[in-house]
Amino acid sequence: MTTSRIAMPSLHKKIMSAADAARLIGHGTTVGMSGFTGSGYPKEVPLALAAHIEEEQAKGNPFRVKVWTGASTGPELDGALAKADGIEFRLPYNSDPIAREKINNGTMNYFDMHLSQVAPMAWQGFLGPLDTAVVEVTGITADGGLIPSSSVGNNKTWLDRAERIILEVNNWQNPALEGMHDIYYGTQLPPNRVPIPLVRADDRIGQPLFRCDLDKIAGIVVTDTPDRNLPFSAPDASAMQIAGHLIEFFEHEVKMGRMPENLLPIQSGVGNIANAVLTGLVDSRFENMTSYTEVIQDGMLDLIDCGKLRIASATAFSLSPEAALRINADMERYRDRMILRPQEISNHPELIRRLGCVSMNGLIEADIYGNVNSTHVMGSRIQNGIGGSGDFARNAFVSIFVTPSTAKGGAISAIVPQVSHVDHISQDVQVIVTEQGLADLRGLSPKQRAELIIEKCAHPKFRPMLADYYARALKDSYGKHSPSLLREALSWHQRFIETGSMEA
Amino acid sequence: MTTSRIAMPSLHKKIMSAADAARLIGHGTTVGMSGFTGSGYPKEVPLALAAHIEEEQAKGNPFRVKVWTGASTGPELDGALAKADGIEFRLPYNSDPIAREKINNGTMNYFDMHLSQVAPMAWQGFLGPLDTAVVEVTGITADGGLIPSSSVGNNKTWLDRAERIILEVNNWQNPALEGMHDIYYGTQLPPNRVPIPLVRADDRIGQPLFRCDLDKIAGIVVTDTPDRNLPFSAPDASAMQIAGHLIEFFEHEVKMGRMPENLLPIQSGVGNIANAVLTGLVDSRFENMTSYTEVIQDGMLDLIDCGKLRIASATAFSLSPEAALRINADMERYRDRMILRPQEISNHPELIRRLGCVSMNGLIEADIYGNVNSTHVMGSRIQNGIGGSGDFARNAFVSIFVTPSTAKGGAISAIVPQVSHVDHISQDVQVIVTEQGLADLRGLSPKQRAELIIEKCAHPKFRPMLADYYARALKDSYGKHSPSLLREALSWHQRFIETGSMEA
Repeated sequence: MTTSRIAMPSLHKKIMSAADAARLIGHGTTVGMSGFTGSGYPKEVPLALAAHIEEEQAKGNPFRVKVWTGASTGPELDGALAKADGIEFRLPYNSDPIAREKINNGTMNYFDMHLSQVAPMAWQGFLGPLDTAVVEVTGITADGGLIPSSSVGNNKTWLDRAERIILEVNNWQNPALEGMHDIYYGTQLPPNRVPIPLVRADDRIGQPLFRCDLDKIAGIVVTDTPDRNLPFSAPDASAMQIAGHLIEFFEHEVKMGRMPENLLPIQSGVGNIANAVLTGLVDSRFENMTSYTEVIQDGMLDLIDCGKLRIASATAFSLSPEAALRINADMERYRDRMILRPQEISNHPELIRRLGCVSMNGLIEADIYGNVNSTHVMGSRIQNGIGGSGDFARNAFVSIFVTPSTAKGGAISAIVPQVSHVDHISQDVQVIVTEQGLADLRGLSPKQRAELIIEKCAHPKFRPMLADYYARALKDSYGKHSPSLLREALSWHQRFIETGSMEA
Repeated sequence: MTTSRIAMPSLHKKIMSAADAARLIGHGTTVGMSGFTGSGYPKEVPLALAAHIEEEQAKGNPFRVKVWTGASTGPELDGALAKADGIEFRLPYNSDPIAREKINNGTMNYFDMHLSQVAPMAWQGFLGPLDTAVVEVTGITADGGLIPSSSVGNNKTWLDRAERIILEVNNWQNPALEGMHDIYYGTQLPPNRVPIPLVRADDRIGQPLFRCDLDKIAGIVVTDTPDRNLPFSAPDASAMQIAGHLIEFFEHEVKMGRMPENLLPIQSGVGNIANAVLTGLVDSRFENMTSYTEVIQDGMLDLIDCGKLRIASATAFSLSPEAALRINADMERYRDRMILRPQEISNHPELIRRLGCVSMNGLIEADIYGNVNSTHVMGSRIQNGIGGSGDFARNAFVSIFVTPSTAKGGAISAIVPQVSHVDHISQDVQVIVTEQGLADLRGLSPKQRAELIIEKCAHPKFRPMLADYYARALKDSYGKHSPSLLREALSWHQRFIETGSMEA
């Protein structure tokens, strides 16, 4: 077990096995873990905790913990703990399939939050105390500074708030990450909050390292395990068409004088379509772009490499294995083009509004009036969570939602009469793009929006059904501001549950 | 016709009749009017415009305009123009009954907006050009400064953006209003936005007067008409109970160390319940309070008079006739305790988050998961609009929604299985209060929220129906994160439409 990443000798005595560290965590306590998408989450302590929980449960002792993180993590954390039935309560985001199953069968409580609000709400106190922080770091400096890992998330807050700290020092993380991070220590609770002094996506307003009370460090575990870097599938035809519509829209906005020549800071949700849009920008005429977003994806590396993206600011990486290799091989160069910040800063409404982000997020379904459901399948089954989409969509200069027009091989229409759950109200949804086309909803009344969404975004197979619903709603609705037929509004979802298809 | 309020002699030649001023406004053009609630809207030009429109229409000439304001206005503006069928498009808020009818029968396009976003979106340009500003002022100084009236709203933006300006100088407005306003001229479009330098509710960051290009002033109309100040009904038992629950909650939060002794800046929606809460605070133990809100209501005067409210910051007055008399009789004293700002500042997400407002807003209905509908009756018929509630609810330190548990004499439950329209997603709804009790939803999963809302907030008459729905949804729902029965979710609304009651 190497200690070379722990440059402060007095901390060497705190090195222990993951199993011993896990035993510091008690039943019923709250654990704040690092991790945002598949980056920078602790890899060994959660596994050891899951094993410990299973042992205790086998003896008939109840053992569950409350788990707070940055966002989603990896199978060694959410997957293992959920499998052990060890999570009583989870916030703020989950995408693990085993945990999702526990949440949807009603055995795990999940508080699905705006990601910008996690740290401030942890400070507010109503979530209760934070007993243990388990945070992955890249290393520890000679004076006890903690070099952040491949995500920042809520780590600053967990280190500050927790009574006890367990560190995982991951030798797999590139030591050249040091200097890439910008940890802002100026946040406060009201009435002591002040303006956050960031005015450009590339501003650095904090320091490169975390600081913590070294006496709180109860254990250090040395690991050497890669992040969960998942492959991106190559963009399919649908994703390329969506990217094409969007780039045409950007060009139009620039031509109309409504956006600068280099656009505005781009926020891009996680996923293949978002990545396709970034890839599409490589071949566009836009130069000197910036990004102020949640995660740095493969497409951003391409944009940096071709010299078109000046800076990518985020709270985490979310890379394919190939891109992770690429970035690790050339970290010193990328370090000048990338900044990782706490998620309360990457997602802060104040900063998103000030910078005027162009936000692009995915969805599960949108309705003809422009309301968006990005979390609940058929209104009740959670997919992942709202994540940062609400932080960005409401405060963006232009809030764009992208989706293929159908799902499940055409059985589901992404455009429905009424969404079965709302995450983004129509006021926060300004542009909807499918492979069919782009609907610019800005400044339109509900009925104008409905006509445009049906025409531009719906799949031709579902378009006549939507037009028929809308025509009858226009005639028979109780009010005709946002015409609706209450008996039918959710019938497409019910039909899917019963027949496996929304088709009539 | 007196010109004493127009201290710049060169402007006297621009004085004209309302009828002549109205003729400066052409068919198909966009007019930005002053006005926020019943305060500070132009009173004569809109009436004259309505008459002109009716004349032209009688001759067979089409004549409609697009109307932008601060928020709601008065019958002389929205009522008269709607009656004349003169409004083609309306933003950002309406509460006029005639205009509401036109919107709901499908003959007027209405774009219901977050009030903080109106000015920035007008600058963005996608709403099209602004042809004429019609702005009420209290007077004009010798060097051409415009003394704002009883609301600020979007006037700065209308004066800056419009090609042509028509002023109404209203002698009814108290000249001692001069000095109460704080007009911030530091807003920009991105990428040039900077932090807004306001850190306390009582900070002044701008100047007391509007400035405009005097060459753009095409007409000045002198008026002497009171604001539309509507009586507040005395708080009923239900409002008093809601106020009682809330004050108990505030006391608990202070005791737990989660709020300062003097609370945090209070935002309070318009209406009788909000006013009852303010009145309840008069008898509370809280001192040295502040308010950062949209409108200054009667209850705030009481709080100022008893010395408990140090400052009330808003964008407009919304007073009863008695309160208007009271404030007019003593304006110089109140002027030190009140600040009126542009609505993009009073409602700015950056500032609401920074100050940590305690927000209190009304609703039409909430569902068992804590989603709130504050605009659409039975999902399709718009009541007023979202107004500033979204600006405050998402960014507040604590976001509270208040409502009696039933409406229409008990025929409607304010708590339903699923809201028929969503304005505030559950993440933005932290506390719901009815006369029955208070549900503190912070940090709870959907099922925990459902149990608490049914128990604490629902009317006893509807509680068993809700509990029955929830129990069956727990059993039969597709997913069990937010259990729902799609066939029944909106059936309460359908029953109301068919039978006049939600009762089974």
